[in-house]
Amino acid sequence: MNNTINLAVLGLGTVGTGVLNLIKDNVNELARRSGHQLVITHAGTRRHRHDIDPSINQTADLMSIAEAKDVDIVIEVIGGTDIAYEVITHAIRHKKHVVTANKALLAKHGNEIFRLAEEHGVQVRYEAAVAGGIPIIKIVREALAANKIDWLTGIINGTGNFIMTEMQQKNRKFDEVLVEAQALGYAEADPTFDVEGIDAAHKLSLLASIAFGIPVQFDKVYCEGITKIGLQDVIYAKELGYTIKHLGFAIRRDHGIELRVHPTLIPSQALLANVNGVKNAVMIDAHPLGQSLYYGDGAGAGATASAVMADVMDLIYVINAATPSDVPHLAFIPEELSDIGILPADEMTSGYYLRLTVKDEVGVLADTTRILSDNGINIDAILQRDAHKSGLVPVIILTLPVLEKQMNAAIRQIEALGAVVEPVVRIRLESLE
Amino acid sequence: MNNTINLAVLGLGTVGTGVLNLIKDNVNELARRSGHQLVITHAGTRRHRHDIDPSINQTADLMSIAEAKDVDIVIEVIGGTDIAYEVITHAIRHKKHVVTANKALLAKHGNEIFRLAEEHGVQVRYEAAVAGGIPIIKIVREALAANKIDWLTGIINGTGNFIMTEMQQKNRKFDEVLVEAQALGYAEADPTFDVEGIDAAHKLSLLASIAFGIPVQFDKVYCEGITKIGLQDVIYAKELGYTIKHLGFAIRRDHGIELRVHPTLIPSQALLANVNGVKNAVMIDAHPLGQSLYYGDGAGAGATASAVMADVMDLIYVINAATPSDVPHLAFIPEELSDIGILPADEMTSGYYLRLTVKDEVGVLADTTRILSDNGINIDAILQRDAHKSGLVPVIILTLPVLEKQMNAAIRQIEALGAVVEPVVRIRLESLE
Repeated sequence: MNNTINLAVLGLGTVGTGVLNLIKDNVNELARRSGHQLVITHAGTRRHRHDIDPSINQTADLMSIAEAKDVDIVIEVIGGTDIAYEVITHAIRHKKHVVTANKALLAKHGNEIFRLAEEHGVQVRYEAAVAGGIPIIKIVREALAANKIDWLTGIINGTGNFIMTEMQQKNRKFDEVLVEAQALGYAEADPTFDVEGIDAAHKLSLLASIAFGIPVQFDKVYCEGITKIGLQDVIYAKELGYTIKHLGFAIRRDHGIELRVHPTLIPSQALLANVNGVKNAVMIDAHPLGQSLYYGDGAGAGATASAVMADVMDLIYVINAATPSDVPHLAFIPEELSDIGILPADEMTSGYYLRLTVKDEVGVLADTTRILSDNGINIDAILQRDAHKSGLVPVIILTLPVLEKQMNAAIRQIEALGAVVEPVVRIRLESLE
Repeated sequence: MNNTINLAVLGLGTVGTGVLNLIKDNVNELARRSGHQLVITHAGTRRHRHDIDPSINQTADLMSIAEAKDVDIVIEVIGGTDIAYEVITHAIRHKKHVVTANKALLAKHGNEIFRLAEEHGVQVRYEAAVAGGIPIIKIVREALAANKIDWLTGIINGTGNFIMTEMQQKNRKFDEVLVEAQALGYAEADPTFDVEGIDAAHKLSLLASIAFGIPVQFDKVYCEGITKIGLQDVIYAKELGYTIKHLGFAIRRDHGIELRVHPTLIPSQALLANVNGVKNAVMIDAHPLGQSLYYGDGAGAGATASAVMADVMDLIYVINAATPSDVPHLAFIPEELSDIGILPADEMTSGYYLRLTVKDEVGVLADTTRILSDNGINIDAILQRDAHKSGLVPVIILTLPVLEKQMNAAIRQIEALGAVVEPVVRIRLESLE
């Protein structure tokens, strides 16, 4: 137990404190596994903390830490895309390995940051950036490295999943659950990143890159949040044997890749449909492995610290090798990244849940099914409910997979029918097979 | 794409053929990820195969392959513990890295084989030995390396899970399902290893070692199979909200470690209870990560080849580093392996499902509950059914966790009651919390 690895933790918020606690709690396990003493020598924090080990050198001057001679690994858990960008690129230029939990930063600047790291012969590790404590980056980059990944999907935003679970299990409305999620600390005061799907899209862009060997392309992700999911749709879906989850999908098609984040009906008996509360899970379909699924805590101090420190443990092997040879940042060697296109929404394929609100007239159902058929759309199920007091009738239609542009055309024609009095509600549907 | 990695595959059965197919199917992905061409130069097989690439050097002389100068990595997929032992140790002595899927061999000779590998500066990788295509070895050795693992449990034998699933979902009897499993190729002609829990115990001994940092101790695993599970117990369990699964448990207690493989009642809504058919899954409770679960195919050519080749992909980094520095074989550095004891069955703690067959007499339930109480055992639920035509009544009792020796004492007393006419049936119960 001779060698010491010196760590700098930039940011002492929830995650940074979680990292400190992990090292304190598991000091023996870390040493027994790695054969090294892990020591935090520096902490970057705006406010001096009196409750942490006084031997840790605290400073607000992050740049000075990022270039400190005695630091082996810089852990960035500040968040945000401005200071974090400056400090990470500064650390890389000073030949420090970096561990970060920052999905927003990597979704935006990942390609550039990884290239810079390769130029300087260091590694930027980011296990904590996707699905929290679930080691999904390692799984896709290393454990599934011999597979051709066909598609993956996942619940990769805990806040959104908490809200959908409460709506599903307790028939509660979105607005009401959101307020509770904020009170519980699951959702931010400004919940936009979570409920509009932006956080999930950040993570999906990273997962897709390492699954398919393409650059990180956050700006190409089709992104739809959960703010418009009505309780009635959750209930109708349940009656039909489906659960609505907010999922990210990365799918390899012959002519390009689909990247999309949106509410989705999935069969209620699917394992993913039973991933509840703030939990995350990712399912992967690969050749020749087949389907596999990975489940755990997607956020929180402990889960995030677990992922951050797994990266640190890996980097010890990199540091100790005379010629470090490690997994490429984006899983594929840089010169082999593919420029295969990300498909526009029009060219994506999925099944659909449609809810029509119609006047109770003879013939409207026949007209609707004819329009769908004319557009090459196959119906899987129809659910017609009794008329409301208003005389209006909800009609639910589930379709088999169809190109989105065909569905757009069909919906325009359906909405033009005189008996259809409201815009058609549509939610994507996936069988996960 | 200059460097070539030469592989030797020993054994061209299901798994060996799966490895050949994987390399053929995914040649581009493998090269794009690793930056190397993976080439099979030698295959060890008793019968010459005319349907494979003629450039592969086929021979029945396994030892000659294990020492061949141009081989970088030896892949052992022969199975069994005799020839496999000879050829693996021979390869190690010739400084070859080894990848094996052989859980029986490692459960029996792992400690010795890993020590030999360390002496010769090579790696023995064994991802495919546990839970097939689920990358559970990598997850426990690397992804959870910063955690203190408290316990893990899993469905780690697909044959057993197929049988339990059929009994549970279709109310079929053990013997009948076993015959079908054999016809489907899920179970061997001699199904002992699967249905008596031995295969699961092999795997559990490896998992426990890398979870807790202890030597591989297969001979200390308490092992109970599924051959004695009656359909009636499956049905009663279901009525009480439980599913019976054949699980392996490795649990860290204050005074030692529990290693046990046995049928177990678990809550029907638990994710593990919904892992059906030949699928495998492992759940881990760790600090600070919390609970996580890993699910996928536990056997079959594709899943096993996926795991074997993940090990090969990792070894490329080891081979390329001038000073290879890699994860210890048993996750913890050898001098830090702990000699903490494995607890005898008497000292293990779990809840219980008890089924008594009693004469329909007043007082027997009162006597039974008194005996349990006198032995410090708390009752969680009681289910009493109508008398059979015989006049005998089944009584089901679920208990909270209790030391096994207390339960043994209680059952001896219960069986001494005059109204209790058959031996008490007992199955362990775990809440998984």
